[in-house]
Amino acid sequence: MTPFAKVATTPSTREEVLPVLSAIADGQALSSLSARLAELRELAGSDMAETEADLATLHRPANIVAQSAHHLLDLGGKRVRPLCVALAARVGAGFSPAARHLAVAVELVHAATLLHDDVVDVGDTRRGKPTARTLYGNAASVFAGDWLLIEALKRVRQAAVPGVLDKLLFVIEEMIHAEAVQLKNRGRVGGGRTDYFHVVEGKTAALFRWAMYAGGRSAGLAESECLALESFGLHLGVAFQAIDDLLDFTGDPATTGKASLADLREGKLTYPIIIALEREPGILPALTEIAAAPGDEAPPPALCARVVEAIQSTGGYEECRKLAKGRTAQAIAALAPLPASRARAALVTVAEATLAREQ
Amino acid sequence: MTPFAKVATTPSTREEVLPVLSAIADGQALSSLSARLAELRELAGSDMAETEADLATLHRPANIVAQSAHHLLDLGGKRVRPLCVALAARVGAGFSPAARHLAVAVELVHAATLLHDDVVDVGDTRRGKPTARTLYGNAASVFAGDWLLIEALKRVRQAAVPGVLDKLLFVIEEMIHAEAVQLKNRGRVGGGRTDYFHVVEGKTAALFRWAMYAGGRSAGLAESECLALESFGLHLGVAFQAIDDLLDFTGDPATTGKASLADLREGKLTYPIIIALEREPGILPALTEIAAAPGDEAPPPALCARVVEAIQSTGGYEECRKLAKGRTAQAIAALAPLPASRARAALVTVAEATLAREQ
Repeated sequence: MTPFAKVATTPSTREEVLPVLSAIADGQALSSLSARLAELRELAGSDMAETEADLATLHRPANIVAQSAHHLLDLGGKRVRPLCVALAARVGAGFSPAARHLAVAVELVHAATLLHDDVVDVGDTRRGKPTARTLYGNAASVFAGDWLLIEALKRVRQAAVPGVLDKLLFVIEEMIHAEAVQLKNRGRVGGGRTDYFHVVEGKTAALFRWAMYAGGRSAGLAESECLALESFGLHLGVAFQAIDDLLDFTGDPATTGKASLADLREGKLTYPIIIALEREPGILPALTEIAAAPGDEAPPPALCARVVEAIQSTGGYEECRKLAKGRTAQAIAALAPLPASRARAALVTVAEATLAREQ
Repeated sequence: MTPFAKVATTPSTREEVLPVLSAIADGQALSSLSARLAELRELAGSDMAETEADLATLHRPANIVAQSAHHLLDLGGKRVRPLCVALAARVGAGFSPAARHLAVAVELVHAATLLHDDVVDVGDTRRGKPTARTLYGNAASVFAGDWLLIEALKRVRQAAVPGVLDKLLFVIEEMIHAEAVQLKNRGRVGGGRTDYFHVVEGKTAALFRWAMYAGGRSAGLAESECLALESFGLHLGVAFQAIDDLLDFTGDPATTGKASLADLREGKLTYPIIIALEREPGILPALTEIAAAPGDEAPPPALCARVVEAIQSTGGYEECRKLAKGRTAQAIAALAPLPASRARAALVTVAEATLAREQ
């Protein structure tokens, strides 16, 4: 079992809401983490249940645009961004209705980007199920992403927390420009570390940052405290993505819900590949051939094996885990300016659980 | 020459900004309209020049997402939505920097929807040039639309006019649900009048409505006056679309920048077809065959000729012009509660010029 198990979509009890917190790989010397995850559930379980119940109230007009959006939302997900909002709020005055609006909003923005990403990447599966675009078409997915983005912004307006809407608009812009960097590198292998961090910080970490900042702001924290939370979000987001990168190679498809080597096949540069390429440039032709292959065709297994071998022999996995570990430590260090509290301790738990997750 | 000629994209003088106002078909007994268009230029020419100059300041990061967005914006356009903002503002206290932000925003929202529409409709030409998606790909167009939407919302935030941001979010939602209705009818012929007005009011008129309301609000008008302006925008938007529908059949592709019968080929229900279908249901098989044809193939000319003949014989063009005329009259009537002013007179001119436009 893993700390980031996916949530049920219509939870009826608090226990169902955070299976992310419900169990931990016992054999992995994580027994202290396991106890702290129970504490995290105690603290944030009801916030997450409220968020989930609120997400379920999103209206369901009978058209394929809304159906596409609900298809994705109903698949559930780790809801780690709403959890960030909730814990950041609990560092301050608590999880108010405004914080709940922000928690719903951050998940809707995330879902909106997934809907557009699946169209752009010609993605066929998401969370182990067919993507919305394969069921309802690309057109419906494009408009569904537009719709969820607008719904998210309406929620942020309802929250009426000063400063967070403008910050979200800037964050979404950052996400779009990160997509542009990724597009530039599509079908070729290039960019290296600079582009990698541009994409990871823009596509993943920016929204984690916002979730932390917005949660803190909703709960009356001072700007300096919100910025400390934001810094936590930045590093946590990079660590989260580095683990995602690892899971593309080492994850069990039944657990991750993604086809093995999906990122590699889509020509997405992940950190293990960057290391392998830096240390063994001879794999470039194999990578180029994999990246240039049509999206719906599996690349020759021999090529994939060649790349995986190079990652192993160059220590690509270890370096990626080191990146995740280093960023987790930076995330935790960023919390230092905040007074000790159950919520701050819970954020440390989230960061450590990010390292241990298997999906 | 026509009242709605497209604007130069980087105007250096006021005269270049509103060629929309610069000339009128002399042979069409519109000489009084011609004089009033000169008056409109006198009134709003500098507002439009400022809007155009401001649009040109939108930053240009060197990536294909931004290039896609600028490709569309640089093609120019009629800029009729910003003109609505400017004139509505001039009904009140005038065209302030806040109004200019709103004028830029409404054009950016419009451009964002065009970028997504071209992906969804597999559109190859727009404003007489290749669409952004044919030059930079569907992926870049999707993100370019996302980007312009966010830029638009940032502008509305900058304008800081109470009430207009929330209204814009609702309007964009309406636009998306109208897209959903259009998607539902894709590849088949159905829906009739109800769906037609749902789509036209959602896709076109909603944004005209917002432009008028927002302009009035930025200029300190009372809510009742803003609602009168909004009502003008609604009817003007429907009239504008009805003329667009006509131009799909009767327009000169060199003038409209669209391939002849483009709407018909894309299976979009336009008003002349609705009339023809109501009065001569026997054309349904021909329409169905045209709508079912792949987007990149021209339907058999004999089928198109059959439909065009039916529209002529059933009076489809006349009914469509009648719709546009009726709505123009309603738009003008909606202005009655407003005190007489040069700006109110200019709005009447815009409504009448909408009827006379040839592109």
